[in-house]
Formats: sequence, structure tokens, C-alpha cells
Amino acid sequence: MSTSTTPPAPSPYYQRHVFFCLNQRDNGERSCGDFNAQAAFDHCKKRVKAEGLAGAGKVRVNKAGCLDRCAAGPVAVVYPEAVWYTYLDLTDIDEIVESHLKGGQPVERLRVPPHLGR
Amino acid sequence: MSTSTTPPAPSPYYQRHVFFCLNQRDNGERSCGDFNAQAAFDHCKKRVKAEGLAGAGKVRVNKAGCLDRCAAGPVAVVYPEAVWYTYLDLTDIDEIVESHLKGGQPVERLRVPPHLGR
Repeated sequence: MSTSTTPPAPSPYYQRHVFFCLNQRDNGERSCGDFNAQAAFDHCKKRVKAEGLAGAGKVRVNKAGCLDRCAAGPVAVVYPEAVWYTYLDLTDIDEIVESHLKGGQPVERLRVPPHLGR
Repeated sequence: MSTSTTPPAPSPYYQRHVFFCLNQRDNGERSCGDFNAQAAFDHCKKRVKAEGLAGAGKVRVNKAGCLDRCAAGPVAVVYPEAVWYTYLDLTDIDEIVESHLKGGQPVERLRVPPHLGR
């Protein structure tokens, strides 16, 4: 594999593309779906629309399968910035929308610690 | 909304994070699920594992819901580079894995034209 990452396109189709893990495991293992991920996704999508942020050149809020950072769950990631979040409740989602998706300022207190993976 | 995009983290958790739209509509509208998106996702995931590219610091191949660029479907996107692809068959997926995910060189002929959205 190449060791460097190609820089992102100067004008990505979405300025910020948010992916929420909505994975639900039924085998007893921890999964984001156990932590109201669907409600967080729905709320984020609604808030982004209400703020007029949704669409090409702006923000897209997306469903995703397991992002494989389950130890930090529930998680969401914002690309192309590659900012990973965990959240407790809808107030956290509001802060991500307001500060980061609208204001461009990542919410430091909600970032996933770099070492946390599966 | 802010007008600029925060640069991606210098070392994103995944060097390349690939999202396949697996959306399947049942209302007659075009959706990526009509074009063997699941088979393409499965094949990509298998090839990435076989090449030893899978994991933190390397490549993650992910399921996603509708990416809202249905006119170009089936689509997949590679972040943080924000390179959007369309594909016809598993040979196209092999080329994306070999050239881009392994070699760092995007496959120009498979890129989604910038104007194509929903």
C-alpha cells in the first residue's frame, strides 16, 4: 500500500459528509445501535435540514454500517476532515451541528481518543 | 455555514475509508441496490482483506445508506480524499482496489462527473 494519502479534492461534492454507525448486533457484543444511534442520526439529519445546511456543496448526513471503532461507540465520523465523534445524547448532536457542521469548529470534547478501535 | 473546510487530520484513523451506497428502493426509482452494489461491496471487502490492506491506519470498506448521487449510481466514495466512483462490474472494483486503495492512484475513468447528483 502507498504510504501517503492523496490530498482531498479542492471542492469535494459535500463540504462535510457525516456518517453515523447504525450497526445493531444481536449477539450480545456492544454495538452503536445499543446507544440510540438511530435517534442521534435522525436528529442530526433534521437539524442540518432545519439550518439549511443540507445538500451538494454543503452537508450530508448518512447512515453507515459498522465503522469498526466499537470500543468508542456510539460513533460518527465527519469527512473529509476525518473527525471522529462519540456522543451521549441529542444535546451533543446539537453541539456538533452548531459548532462543527455550521461553524467549522470541531467539538474537541466529543472526539474519539485516537487509540480506541474495535 | 463556514465557507472553508478544515484540513483532514494528519493521520486519519483510516488512510482510506470507502463507503458503498447499498440503498435499495422499492418504489421504482433508481437506486444503487439495483446495480449489484452488495456484490461490489462484498468483493471490495474481500479483495482489501486478501491484499492485507484492511485495518486501522490502512483501509476500511464500509456499508452506507443513500449517498444522494443516485443519477451516477451505483456509487462509492473514498475519504478523506473525497474521490467518488461509479462502477459497472467487479473488474472495476479490482482496479479501484489495485490502483487506488493499494497504489494511491485514483482511477480517473471511473470517477463520477462533478455535476451528477440526485
